[in-house]
Amino acid sequence: MIVLASKSASRQAMLRDAGVAFEARPADLDERAIETAMADALPSDIALALAEAKALAVTDESHLVLGSDSLVVVDGRRFDKPASRDNAAEHLRYFSGKIMQLHSGAAIARDGEVVWHHAAAAHLHVRELSERFIADYLEREWPAVGYCVGVFRIEALGVQLFERIEGDHFTVLGMPLLPVLGALRDLGELPA
Amino acid sequence: MIVLASKSASRQAMLRDAGVAFEARPADLDERAIETAMADALPSDIALALAEAKALAVTDESHLVLGSDSLVVVDGRRFDKPASRDNAAEHLRYFSGKIMQLHSGAAIARDGEVVWHHAAAAHLHVRELSERFIADYLEREWPAVGYCVGVFRIEALGVQLFERIEGDHFTVLGMPLLPVLGALRDLGELPA
Repeated sequence: MIVLASKSASRQAMLRDAGVAFEARPADLDERAIETAMADALPSDIALALAEAKALAVTDESHLVLGSDSLVVVDGRRFDKPASRDNAAEHLRYFSGKIMQLHSGAAIARDGEVVWHHAAAAHLHVRELSERFIADYLEREWPAVGYCVGVFRIEALGVQLFERIEGDHFTVLGMPLLPVLGALRDLGELPA
Repeated sequence: MIVLASKSASRQAMLRDAGVAFEARPADLDERAIETAMADALPSDIALALAEAKALAVTDESHLVLGSDSLVVVDGRRFDKPASRDNAAEHLRYFSGKIMQLHSGAAIARDGEVVWHHAAAAHLHVRELSERFIADYLEREWPAVGYCVGVFRIEALGVQLFERIEGDHFTVLGMPLLPVLGALRDLGELPA
């Protein structure tokens, strides 16, 4: 069994579907402080730093602790979860016709030390979205997408936002699962 | 509404999740005959021909008909669904450490004519699988994977087979969904 230092439903679902035994124990962390301190860093480095900080924020003497984080950047601008439905519509208008960069980081700590980390990125080509589409989309997807930095759930209507996706699907879901599983095998947590 | 000329549960789930209204009406088709006639063709051409044949095999005067098919090729050898649990283990032993090519085709017919088609491929790097892993995997995944040509469900334990996946996730699930959605928008079936 491992400890997942995240309250993200999609990361929990990924591990569960993959057959990894885990206990979710969200890290109590001031993410804003880390992000502010790293304002000029590369998005992938920020995602990695947040993943490591989460993995280190949960103490467990007998289990590996997995931390993960992801960031959305469009045209050099960082996006957080939308604060309201109107804000979500603004984000979608901004994303329209642009490439969304999704950076995700993962880190594994053992006995309070980071023993593995990995960063991955995906590029999502957002098609030109009409006002009518945006209104209809939020009518059906709000408030669920209020928890999503990219204002989409790829496993639901969100797939209609994109004309093309480059990069790993699990990174799009919020965690680079294949490298995580590889690390868990290397660390003796999963059978090879 | 469209007609999906397929009984595949994963294709139905993909359309449903994406918010596409459809009715599943599986094509009554001699797939073997088409495959035999095309024995020397490229896998992508065979997948496309089967997708088109399915789309044309279902007649509907007022709806678009979507057909889709996918093929698995490893080291130049075509793989069908495993006939038994022992056969599934043989397939997995053969896949171990190799690259699995997954070819998927989709076609849309209107009034008995193919108006759009698309082929896509994904490469799945299978890691070295131990006998113990294969036995444990089939203990948990059989008989569900008996319906899968690649002996895996990527949304379940199947993800543990791979160290890396290149290519579109929806192609891995059995249908290149993003191009299909684009075609449905172009054909006026989905709002832009």
